[in-house]
Amino acid sequence: MDPRLIPVKLPSSQYDICIHSAEGPSGHSLIQLGSQMRARGLSGKALVVSHPVIAKHFAAGLMQGLQTAGFTAQLCLLPAGERFKTPRSIAKIHDAALAFGLERSSTLIALGGGVIGDMAGFAAATWLRGIPFVQVPTSLLAMVDASIGGKTGVNHPKGKNLIGAFHQPRLVWIDPTVLKTLPGREFSSALAEVIKYGVIQAPDVFEFLEDRPKLSRYADFTPADLQHLLVRSAECKAWVVQQDEKEGGLRAILNYGHTLGHALESVTHYRRYLHGEAVAIGMVAAGEIAQRIGWWSVAEAERQRRLIEKAGLPSQWPTGIPWEAVLQAMQADKKVKQGRIRFILPHQIGQAELTDQVNLEQVRAAVEAITAA
Amino acid sequence: MDPRLIPVKLPSSQYDICIHSAEGPSGHSLIQLGSQMRARGLSGKALVVSHPVIAKHFAAGLMQGLQTAGFTAQLCLLPAGERFKTPRSIAKIHDAALAFGLERSSTLIALGGGVIGDMAGFAAATWLRGIPFVQVPTSLLAMVDASIGGKTGVNHPKGKNLIGAFHQPRLVWIDPTVLKTLPGREFSSALAEVIKYGVIQAPDVFEFLEDRPKLSRYADFTPADLQHLLVRSAECKAWVVQQDEKEGGLRAILNYGHTLGHALESVTHYRRYLHGEAVAIGMVAAGEIAQRIGWWSVAEAERQRRLIEKAGLPSQWPTGIPWEAVLQAMQADKKVKQGRIRFILPHQIGQAELTDQVNLEQVRAAVEAITAA
Repeated sequence: MDPRLIPVKLPSSQYDICIHSAEGPSGHSLIQLGSQMRARGLSGKALVVSHPVIAKHFAAGLMQGLQTAGFTAQLCLLPAGERFKTPRSIAKIHDAALAFGLERSSTLIALGGGVIGDMAGFAAATWLRGIPFVQVPTSLLAMVDASIGGKTGVNHPKGKNLIGAFHQPRLVWIDPTVLKTLPGREFSSALAEVIKYGVIQAPDVFEFLEDRPKLSRYADFTPADLQHLLVRSAECKAWVVQQDEKEGGLRAILNYGHTLGHALESVTHYRRYLHGEAVAIGMVAAGEIAQRIGWWSVAEAERQRRLIEKAGLPSQWPTGIPWEAVLQAMQADKKVKQGRIRFILPHQIGQAELTDQVNLEQVRAAVEAITAA
Repeated sequence: MDPRLIPVKLPSSQYDICIHSAEGPSGHSLIQLGSQMRARGLSGKALVVSHPVIAKHFAAGLMQGLQTAGFTAQLCLLPAGERFKTPRSIAKIHDAALAFGLERSSTLIALGGGVIGDMAGFAAATWLRGIPFVQVPTSLLAMVDASIGGKTGVNHPKGKNLIGAFHQPRLVWIDPTVLKTLPGREFSSALAEVIKYGVIQAPDVFEFLEDRPKLSRYADFTPADLQHLLVRSAECKAWVVQQDEKEGGLRAILNYGHTLGHALESVTHYRRYLHGEAVAIGMVAAGEIAQRIGWWSVAEAERQRRLIEKAGLPSQWPTGIPWEAVLQAMQADKKVKQGRIRFILPHQIGQAELTDQVNLEQVRAAVEAITAA
């Protein structure tokens, strides 16, 4: 298939999302990244931040391509996983940057999933007050969401993503063939974000997913279908980010399903659910609230629930979670503004809106209504 | 005297530097900051980052003004001094931000010298991916330099200001009367940066300083002279920052005297010299290099040296510093680009330029020429 370029045009920067599944000798297209970076004016040193398993699969081709294109490249391996997404990991990347002699014109490359991307991006944002940064997402979640839009950061012991910066990449390089090795549960989890695009802004994406015979694994998709899904997801995210880079308004709609999803992740200590799984439950809960306040119909809420289940995602709130803990987690979250809880709710499939007119009793009732019996 | 507003207009933001020396009941104008922030659209919570000595002198009036203007304000006290300018201090500010419930629309205020401003600014840049930030510099150095232009950051154990971000303030509030309590050596040290503006871009500032009968203490200036010096310094810095916010080119001229100045601070472990003192010696060295390569005359180099000494600043390189250590410090510094040392050198008083055409032997010879016998 021909590679696809999706441009992201922001007031202060412009970059491409390149979706390119090549079946070369290495089985992936990452060997071409170096020359593509060179073509975009990057040169000198490149520090590749990754974690050992990903690096084992994909680093050799990437490093070879960087060297062929004239870069001096080095690997910096870190453990991945939310619990390592801390200021301490940023310090480790900075130590590696110093030891390698990373300069203002050097590049930091994230090769990995969302956690690696968030950490490497934040390290790039804060090294010498910001150096060039390239995203090479290797998980479906990072491909359809985290690698696009410039959000970078780490967790505070008491809250997710509280410490961070906006720092746009110079290039996002997506090769769908690397997803072959992605665990099925992670693939499925990422579909939650694609379903989200469907609900908040893209009815065609929602219907495209409804029309697939099966959804929950890499092998359920033809290469063409997978490329279509990645292209449309990138377009959806890029469109929102272009309207509102720093989340002053519209960008908040991307948090659909996330207010309760984040709270659920937090109260289950980020262990029970993958991010997308918690978001899936959060979307079902938001759908329930929307239905209860008359924003959408029982049929629409049901249609969303069916697609979520078809993707192999959970749709029920778990039992045994104290409401007080959920409330506290929502209050610690960034979605609180001047003390009010903000919710993104759908009007119809393909259109959602931010509101602060939902009261906490309505939220609680919706959560109870979708709790497993 | 009437307050003076100097606007700073950047592509992504616009803010005022307000120079206002009021002799109200509290003896300073900081009580008015709250209403000025309000007038600029800020509201909600305000976390004031300061250090104990500064807070003792000035926090009461500032906090009272914030409360009167409707802010919920809290103080966060930190030790100051370069050795506390670390990621650890940023973590402390973030902890305070979390405990106080600082939201995206809240404001972080730096009340203190350059170290407090750099730390509070970086904490604001990285809390919830960037929240509003106000600078209230209380040292002359911070007033004429660090508080303007959006550079924020902390030190890495192996190098100064290696970790940081660009984050522009919403307002810079300068009250010269707070300088009454500034130690004389710090006042003098700050004049190095004012002399720098004179050499690199503003012959009128250079001549203004030459024309003062005495220079080295607060009491040597009339209120009108001090306001003039602050206004012109702010204008000089603002002009450069407006041309080149992120130091892509022109802004580098602000590093005049800093290449060797930083190296000297580093090899003396930031203990022997105040920043401005090291910059003063760095400017004398740069003047020596400029003279040796024919960029300016012996008379101009001498005129600069005389003004530096009149301001009570050192003009000789200290004995007993191994050249290898200086070299290493310059290489670790951000001024190294693709392995070359960059220098800012003057063509005449009021005009300087970045060059990478100076070789290390010339630098060494110039340093030796100005070393104390």
